[in-house]
Amino acid sequence: MSDDKNKSLSATSPPSGDGGAVVLIKCPATVANLVCGFDILGMALQEPYDIMKLKLIDEPKVVIINNDNYNLPTEAEKNVAGVVLLEIIKHNNSSFGFEVEIEKRIKPGSGLGSSSASAAGAAVGANLLLNNKYSNEELVQFAMFGEKLASGVKHADNITPCILGGVTLIRSIHPLDIVKLNAPSLFVTVVHPQIEVKTSDARQILRKEVLLKDAIKQWGNIAGLVAGFEKNDTALIGRSLEDVIIEPVRSILIPGFDTIKSKSKEAGALGGGISGSGPSIFMLSENEATAKEVEAIMQQTFTQLGIEFKTYVTRIAKEGVSVLKY
Amino acid sequence: MSDDKNKSLSATSPPSGDGGAVVLIKCPATVANLVCGFDILGMALQEPYDIMKLKLIDEPKVVIINNDNYNLPTEAEKNVAGVVLLEIIKHNNSSFGFEVEIEKRIKPGSGLGSSSASAAGAAVGANLLLNNKYSNEELVQFAMFGEKLASGVKHADNITPCILGGVTLIRSIHPLDIVKLNAPSLFVTVVHPQIEVKTSDARQILRKEVLLKDAIKQWGNIAGLVAGFEKNDTALIGRSLEDVIIEPVRSILIPGFDTIKSKSKEAGALGGGISGSGPSIFMLSENEATAKEVEAIMQQTFTQLGIEFKTYVTRIAKEGVSVLKY
Repeated sequence: MSDDKNKSLSATSPPSGDGGAVVLIKCPATVANLVCGFDILGMALQEPYDIMKLKLIDEPKVVIINNDNYNLPTEAEKNVAGVVLLEIIKHNNSSFGFEVEIEKRIKPGSGLGSSSASAAGAAVGANLLLNNKYSNEELVQFAMFGEKLASGVKHADNITPCILGGVTLIRSIHPLDIVKLNAPSLFVTVVHPQIEVKTSDARQILRKEVLLKDAIKQWGNIAGLVAGFEKNDTALIGRSLEDVIIEPVRSILIPGFDTIKSKSKEAGALGGGISGSGPSIFMLSENEATAKEVEAIMQQTFTQLGIEFKTYVTRIAKEGVSVLKY
Repeated sequence: MSDDKNKSLSATSPPSGDGGAVVLIKCPATVANLVCGFDILGMALQEPYDIMKLKLIDEPKVVIINNDNYNLPTEAEKNVAGVVLLEIIKHNNSSFGFEVEIEKRIKPGSGLGSSSASAAGAAVGANLLLNNKYSNEELVQFAMFGEKLASGVKHADNITPCILGGVTLIRSIHPLDIVKLNAPSLFVTVVHPQIEVKTSDARQILRKEVLLKDAIKQWGNIAGLVAGFEKNDTALIGRSLEDVIIEPVRSILIPGFDTIKSKSKEAGALGGGISGSGPSIFMLSENEATAKEVEAIMQQTFTQLGIEFKTYVTRIAKEGVSVLKY
């Protein structure tokens, strides 16, 4: 984060002057990794999404109000949105703070970027109240403090699509280099089986070394996937949705995964895989009919396994966090 | 290779009927890997190139005439172009064969796809004489027999750009899946130091396992490079030309490499690295003035090291093997 003194000083009091500006925003769910793009690719979904309301207050503190039943912490230092807003207050050396109301609709632990939605929403919402003083890259940097709290690591693969929308690439995390890719108009079917897969567990079961020949296969697929997105070549996207490194290990933690993947592709889906570190599974389709057929496959599979679940038939969201009212 | 009996039978005698058709072609040098895209990316150069002349003859055999001083084998089974033409004769179960004259200008062992130029030229040239019965993908398959003879492995990362031109991606080798990427109008400076680096040695010094964290960095750069090509974003191309896996090991075999790379980037080059498995080094630049400055840096470095060398200031070739006369 660049430390621009002039910028910081100019914002020591609320820019609106009345302390009463309120912004209502929508923060989309996101799918990280996109099968072969572990830690580098992600995309935003039209559904589900969180709703957040942010307001400037006259004290340099963060007040959190949860409008849902998830019992998330309301102490700013323990709340994903809270730590992001505290960082912004610190960076501005400000005399003002934020009140934030969160209606979480993306279930925590779903693998659909629930914590990122809060972190990204906090950063974008605060920035709106501060007259857009920060760049998207700076907002990603702020939001990563929320990811650090949630998972122990400053990841950006959910945050970036949540802020920028569409499909995004983290070319490098140090230094941060984010690239917005072309997002094709595809349908996304998502199932969230109500089982717990902790991000930290999902990370620990990965081997620290991979075979060079597998790495070569993986980067062939990543290159194919990026080319497919940029060229709007859905067949190439489909052929490239293959992961020889992470999925074979992580999918063991998700019952029904192989059945859903193979049946969905038989039904005409382009492909798909684990959303983030799971347990949600996503599948991409070219049309709504196929996306709904995939949903039926997901419903049937988890019903047979006796596991509760929730499904979504949605699309890639071209926009990230967006304003409902300001 | 699909075994289409009808196609094969229809070509058991020369299509032209007169046995005298002759084609004169130009077969470009190629740069494989493109820094981070080990085994998957490649590009064609405007210079140097080989010249090949192919003629149909009335016997199912291959006659090779070398018009250069490299003393390459003239027995078809031991010659890169020869084995490709033998495969084509076999696939056609034909009564005719080929006479091929080769003027090699791409020095063998340079790391600039010298053997691929012969293999690709043989496949494309024969296909022209056979009224373009084969697809580009089939031509790549045939040409890989030449690479197998040259290096022991059926690689396609030089052959593909040599046939298709521009910048190409091998998403997968089994099954073969080739993708032509957008090729930006960039200048390429190449230096071929007259030292020997055998492809087999350059392959053996690589570790069979890589750290997952390095693989992630690598696929971030590959994704960035592909996005950069497709978007014509030269700054992104420059930032993505980084190899944390292969180059640190292989560059040890090439004296002067680090000096040339750092000085070229200081001079304004976008970046570059080892061409294929070396010893040639290539650098990409946005304009000719920078490309020539890079050439001077290369000349100076190898002169000081007392190593003979040859340089080229050229461009990415949009076309692959092309017809000079038919």
